[in-house]
Amino acid sequence: MTQPIPMLEIWRGDLLESQHLGHAVVCDSSGQVVESWGDDEKVIYPRSSCKMLQALPLIESGAADAFGLSTEQLALACASHQGAAIHTDRVDAWLSDLGLTEAAFCCGPQEPNDIPARDALIRAGEAPGRRHNNCSGKHSGFLTLAKHLGAGPDYVNIDLPVQRAVKAAFEEMVEENSPGYGIDGCSAPNHACTVTGLARAMAKMAAPSGGGTRSAACERLVSAMGAHPDLVAGEGRACTELMRAMDGKVAIKTGAEAVFVAILPEQKLGIALKVADGGTRAAEAAIAALLVKYGALNAEHPMALKFMHGPIRNWDGLKTGHMKIAAGFA
Amino acid sequence: MTQPIPMLEIWRGDLLESQHLGHAVVCDSSGQVVESWGDDEKVIYPRSSCKMLQALPLIESGAADAFGLSTEQLALACASHQGAAIHTDRVDAWLSDLGLTEAAFCCGPQEPNDIPARDALIRAGEAPGRRHNNCSGKHSGFLTLAKHLGAGPDYVNIDLPVQRAVKAAFEEMVEENSPGYGIDGCSAPNHACTVTGLARAMAKMAAPSGGGTRSAACERLVSAMGAHPDLVAGEGRACTELMRAMDGKVAIKTGAEAVFVAILPEQKLGIALKVADGGTRAAEAAIAALLVKYGALNAEHPMALKFMHGPIRNWDGLKTGHMKIAAGFA
Repeated sequence: MTQPIPMLEIWRGDLLESQHLGHAVVCDSSGQVVESWGDDEKVIYPRSSCKMLQALPLIESGAADAFGLSTEQLALACASHQGAAIHTDRVDAWLSDLGLTEAAFCCGPQEPNDIPARDALIRAGEAPGRRHNNCSGKHSGFLTLAKHLGAGPDYVNIDLPVQRAVKAAFEEMVEENSPGYGIDGCSAPNHACTVTGLARAMAKMAAPSGGGTRSAACERLVSAMGAHPDLVAGEGRACTELMRAMDGKVAIKTGAEAVFVAILPEQKLGIALKVADGGTRAAEAAIAALLVKYGALNAEHPMALKFMHGPIRNWDGLKTGHMKIAAGFA
Repeated sequence: MTQPIPMLEIWRGDLLESQHLGHAVVCDSSGQVVESWGDDEKVIYPRSSCKMLQALPLIESGAADAFGLSTEQLALACASHQGAAIHTDRVDAWLSDLGLTEAAFCCGPQEPNDIPARDALIRAGEAPGRRHNNCSGKHSGFLTLAKHLGAGPDYVNIDLPVQRAVKAAFEEMVEENSPGYGIDGCSAPNHACTVTGLARAMAKMAAPSGGGTRSAACERLVSAMGAHPDLVAGEGRACTELMRAMDGKVAIKTGAEAVFVAILPEQKLGIALKVADGGTRAAEAAIAALLVKYGALNAEHPMALKFMHGPIRNWDGLKTGHMKIAAGFA
């Protein structure tokens, strides 16, 4: 088994203070590995980085069209949002269209990472709700699919129709039989796969072949993400800021424990990476570095510089250090 | 150069999801290495884990006695507190005793990690201040020393009396010439040393030899930390909860980028560790594991179990995983 390789260095003054290791794979649309670092067969949980795969049955079942879902809703179905008003207002409207309230969500309550939304709750003396959970868009999609299938209120049970459809789509896209699943932060199952499998799925989303329902669903989701980068994460977040920096031409998505994927339609490539220690800052820097390497992101764009190099500043705004992509990676 | 070794595993379901590597050293009071993992000569920034060393001149200069500092104030001088009222009220009183306001602090403003204090600020529409900075106790100590020495208002300049005294005490305790310094989160200099040097300094604090001013200062600081674990960090934090779990018999201290140290007077040992990727959860687990191994912490204590094993729960409170100390460490 190949060990993870150095991806990101954290410098303070003249000393290398911390270092992150990881695995990364770039695949083309035929599923072939174009380039890899670390262990390309490393088995990981994609976590939220696979929300686009989890959203495929929403479209392929006909549910999205039956409920007239907008591109905004499709972007939210793929989102790990930060609970800003632009997210929760749309989730509320979606629930209302379904004749439901947030009580229908299986995801737990989560304090918004969006500061204005967080502060508004605190000032109002209100507890965060399930609608604020970063996955509430995905769960709105699951509820829509459940209603369309006439399935029960439990849409996270792995043996019931919604998650059966999700698992089938996931395994078809990664072209692997998942060796197992874990329960995600939002209580939905999350299926393990290799880093290569995840990159392969993203390449197929970048350049779907064969036409048909699957191809159309892939194109609609990637297009929706690119059209609404603010709905996929939020202000200041890597997914949103880097997608904006690429004019929406590339869809990227983070996952907990430092997973990151990218879908590059122009290059017909898919990328997946996992930082071994789960450090988010390294996953953000590493995906930016690979996007630069493959010609999707301008290396001099302020957001490329920010996520790859810093600077690192302290509480008083002083520059105390910087980040550096490790030699030998990207 | 020896590589860092696996310290902590993060499991979700049946899959090892993430892993942290690090370096750790246990020293006795003669400065000899008792046991080590990874590279015992690894050069690190101790960050806030060396606040006890930075506080030595406050006592040794006579400043602490001249200003009648309480054990609470000495504990705060060694603290990375979370800005709760129990911390900021005491910092305010200390500033008042010095005839100063928080404008005298060189540390920048920081939102409290203490939730009630954070929410109170938000409800009042007030911005966080420099007094809320986790290092404001240390800076109160620096200001006290500056006043006692008749030094100027800039107490973080490495060439002026306060930081000259701090550097001298630090290098004497670690028994190394520091190869350089970085600027810390609070804008004070932070001197690099080896993991062994840091462990050696902690062992000397655990069992000071030779009597005299240095020995007395070490004993007063360790005793103050043990007497006031709530002032050293705050509710729920590893430093506070684990010191409570050991009945205040051991002083422990975390530092940014996953440094942790322990001072064990009964065992006459000092411990220092650094997680290579800067992951705090691993530093907390690793120090707990070493405290258990060296007989200072009951392995079955709820806080030992919490910081070493979890469980990891999701937003809805479901158990989704656990932590495990890596085989071969502690």
